[in-house]
Amino acid sequence: MRLVRVGLHSQGEPLALMRTDCHVCRSEGLHARARVEIATGGRRVTARLLQVEAGLLNPHEIGLSEDAWMRLGATEGAVATVRPAPPAASMSLVRHKLYGGALAQKDFTAILGDVQAGLLSDVQLATFLSAGAALPLDDEETTALTRAMVVVGDRLSWDAPRVMDKHCVGGLPGNRTTPIVVAIAAACGLVIPKTSSRAITSPAGTADTMETLAPVDLDLPAIRRVVEAEGGCIVWGGAVRLSPADDAFVRIEREIDIDAEGQLIASVLSKKVAAGSTHVVIDIPVGPTAKVRTAEAARGLATRLSLVGARLGLKVACLLTDGSQPVGRGIGPAPEARDVLAVLRGEPEAPLDLAERALALSAVLLETGGAAAPGTGADLARAVLSDGRAWAKFAAICEVQGGLRQPPEAAQIRAVTAHFAGQITAIDNRRLARLAKLAGAPGNPAAGLVLAVHVGDTVAKGQPLFHLHAASTGEIAYAIDYWTGAPAITVAG
Amino acid sequence: MRLVRVGLHSQGEPLALMRTDCHVCRSEGLHARARVEIATGGRRVTARLLQVEAGLLNPHEIGLSEDAWMRLGATEGAVATVRPAPPAASMSLVRHKLYGGALAQKDFTAILGDVQAGLLSDVQLATFLSAGAALPLDDEETTALTRAMVVVGDRLSWDAPRVMDKHCVGGLPGNRTTPIVVAIAAACGLVIPKTSSRAITSPAGTADTMETLAPVDLDLPAIRRVVEAEGGCIVWGGAVRLSPADDAFVRIEREIDIDAEGQLIASVLSKKVAAGSTHVVIDIPVGPTAKVRTAEAARGLATRLSLVGARLGLKVACLLTDGSQPVGRGIGPAPEARDVLAVLRGEPEAPLDLAERALALSAVLLETGGAAAPGTGADLARAVLSDGRAWAKFAAICEVQGGLRQPPEAAQIRAVTAHFAGQITAIDNRRLARLAKLAGAPGNPAAGLVLAVHVGDTVAKGQPLFHLHAASTGEIAYAIDYWTGAPAITVAG
Repeated sequence: MRLVRVGLHSQGEPLALMRTDCHVCRSEGLHARARVEIATGGRRVTARLLQVEAGLLNPHEIGLSEDAWMRLGATEGAVATVRPAPPAASMSLVRHKLYGGALAQKDFTAILGDVQAGLLSDVQLATFLSAGAALPLDDEETTALTRAMVVVGDRLSWDAPRVMDKHCVGGLPGNRTTPIVVAIAAACGLVIPKTSSRAITSPAGTADTMETLAPVDLDLPAIRRVVEAEGGCIVWGGAVRLSPADDAFVRIEREIDIDAEGQLIASVLSKKVAAGSTHVVIDIPVGPTAKVRTAEAARGLATRLSLVGARLGLKVACLLTDGSQPVGRGIGPAPEARDVLAVLRGEPEAPLDLAERALALSAVLLETGGAAAPGTGADLARAVLSDGRAWAKFAAICEVQGGLRQPPEAAQIRAVTAHFAGQITAIDNRRLARLAKLAGAPGNPAAGLVLAVHVGDTVAKGQPLFHLHAASTGEIAYAIDYWTGAPAITVAG
Repeated sequence: MRLVRVGLHSQGEPLALMRTDCHVCRSEGLHARARVEIATGGRRVTARLLQVEAGLLNPHEIGLSEDAWMRLGATEGAVATVRPAPPAASMSLVRHKLYGGALAQKDFTAILGDVQAGLLSDVQLATFLSAGAALPLDDEETTALTRAMVVVGDRLSWDAPRVMDKHCVGGLPGNRTTPIVVAIAAACGLVIPKTSSRAITSPAGTADTMETLAPVDLDLPAIRRVVEAEGGCIVWGGAVRLSPADDAFVRIEREIDIDAEGQLIASVLSKKVAAGSTHVVIDIPVGPTAKVRTAEAARGLATRLSLVGARLGLKVACLLTDGSQPVGRGIGPAPEARDVLAVLRGEPEAPLDLAERALALSAVLLETGGAAAPGTGADLARAVLSDGRAWAKFAAICEVQGGLRQPPEAAQIRAVTAHFAGQITAIDNRRLARLAKLAGAPGNPAAGLVLAVHVGDTVAKGQPLFHLHAASTGEIAYAIDYWTGAPAITVAG
């Protein structure tokens, strides 16, 4: 069969197109949701088969989606062999778990090997994740899963006895403490090679925000140079494949809207272990519209994160933080970057809540990293931020990453105001995030919104609640439409 | 957006194709595995979105797969509105089950309503099925699921106090008792309106086999005429949508290779209840390569089938039968049909095992249906079969269905022989079924194979083990290739 690149984007699931009248389809008796294995030039990919009528493809042609094309490293018109994909061997282990059995390290290693090789279909991945939600992974299984997720990806090592890291268990717009924490920690002599992600469903990932301040798309040698020179970096993790199987899991978890604790722990810790970290501080925002909704759930999660981390040689400290409203004022890459700059530069209008959270996380890092004696981390962090050492370190890191720059300004800024006087009683994180995305974030890095109020503030009629930042009046109108139907800020008159 | 039929066969999951640069894709921020709702002319369909580069579609065009096209009842070029599909409301109930909660009747009704409306994606269906495998449905939940599966489909009613039915819990090639049982039961005055399925993964479904003897593709009025005239029918169930949600479940269960007992029971009984049956006899073959592998598992299944059936007003009798090897000689539509004819006509070479199984099932039906006093069903069944009344009834049913016909003969018949003398110690049902499919069954109704031996027989070197029936020598060669690598019959020398 000849390979044809059909320009089909299937968001992670490799697809193959074959004609309904092709000999493979007929003689192999390919059934519903069939999967085929395509091999060429020593490489192979397993793809879900879709069949097309004559017209779209010539006989003896097989069309590949972009995901399948990339995995196969195919060239247009190359000849490939096609056969029904053998069932993934590890599915029997998935069924063992589903039927109440326990999985050992070697079982998770086999399953993750198949996940990484693309041998499990999306439906099969959903079964694995559902099994772990219905019959929760115990600490031993969670540890084994974490280890297996590390093994299938890249693994970094650093020439330092302690390698610091931080993480936030998502869900809180504007909670952009990373650049500040890295600057403070590195300014105090700690090694903190921070890799961050881009937004998946949020209006900005740390990498998106940071990219408005400096280049973040560095390869591994470049990352090493930055860390050697300045002790820390804030880069996009795309150059290294840390726990790459997690991407496949996240894609499915979003569709079924589950996030089992064992899987969450493995997702967070596998990336830290793979990054070569030895100490990590984890921010767990708690609030009714945050990812973790009660303090009890947060404490349980913190205990398990520390326990599983310890088994993997990772010292984990968790901080439960206020997740009842966004942090800082900006939501979206550039609006958040301006908050970060204001805090680092000690500007009078800098958002206090963002500064205080960053200081609290830094204090823990400084003490566990050995840069401050127990009980003195908070004072050291505050001193380093207020005397400009953190800002100087941040600017230096940006320079080595490729040059500090100014976040872009939006072409259109529109105030959204209070219809009547009253007090702000609640802010819905999820609706606010959606609003910033409708304004164009993160695709347009200048887009998003800037809050003018926080919970507890009183407002007069006509006073701005927030400003929308967008490239066009069309996007502004689109966001305002949504706001009208689903106000994200509650004003009690 | 304008609708375009792209001739894409996605085997049950509706797909929509949109250009990556279309305004909906951009402004809605459609993410991985996004789903869109497409509406036109008062109908709507939810489809998984695939994105294509310019070239395949014009701007403002949306391509639909065949499944999506049919569900929407679309016309080429019609204008449709497209929006991101709202999350299916019943997924919160699926998650409730996944996290250990119990589901009530109204919950199953809501879930099945969404399944039938196509609002759950394949990945979400997998989650529902996995939840029921990990945390098995109890009798109450199984009953509720069965009822919900009945409600979303068609429901038949018959003008008779007792409506008989039979079913086989699959997995045994050649076990084609239905035509014989229906003939015997109808000959004894019972009402038995039997609808059967076509093959999904097997070399022949009852409808495929029966179609080589008479037309089976009858609409509901035609089915009613046959049953009124002769008391019974043996038709394809495609004209009526009995428990149609089961098709979606089966598609996913096959991919993850699970078959949870609650789901199996609901699948079997929902079709019987929807068909208007009051009494059903269920054949449960037990053997190492059959669907049910131990007598203990079969007894447990039988108990639950009877219990759940009783709650739904259905009297269920189960027969545990030998599932260690195929039944009769033929595997494939026409080869099986010839076995059925031989039994009904009382030919000397008729396969005794097929006749005895059909008699055993008929005996139970005759007694529970009131045609024979307790303990006399077996004698009556044997009398009706041996004196030609069953054959006369079968021929009459075939005539009313459109005319009795001869099963087609294959163009190529090739013997596969023993390499050495010895005894047949085992026959692998699954491999034999695959062999018949490679020969062309059921697509070519004449294709399949005819066994020359059973377990326990002794063979000389060069003596035939079976004959392959196919349309071409190519297909024969293809099947022999497979046989060489995976012999389905074990000869101990």
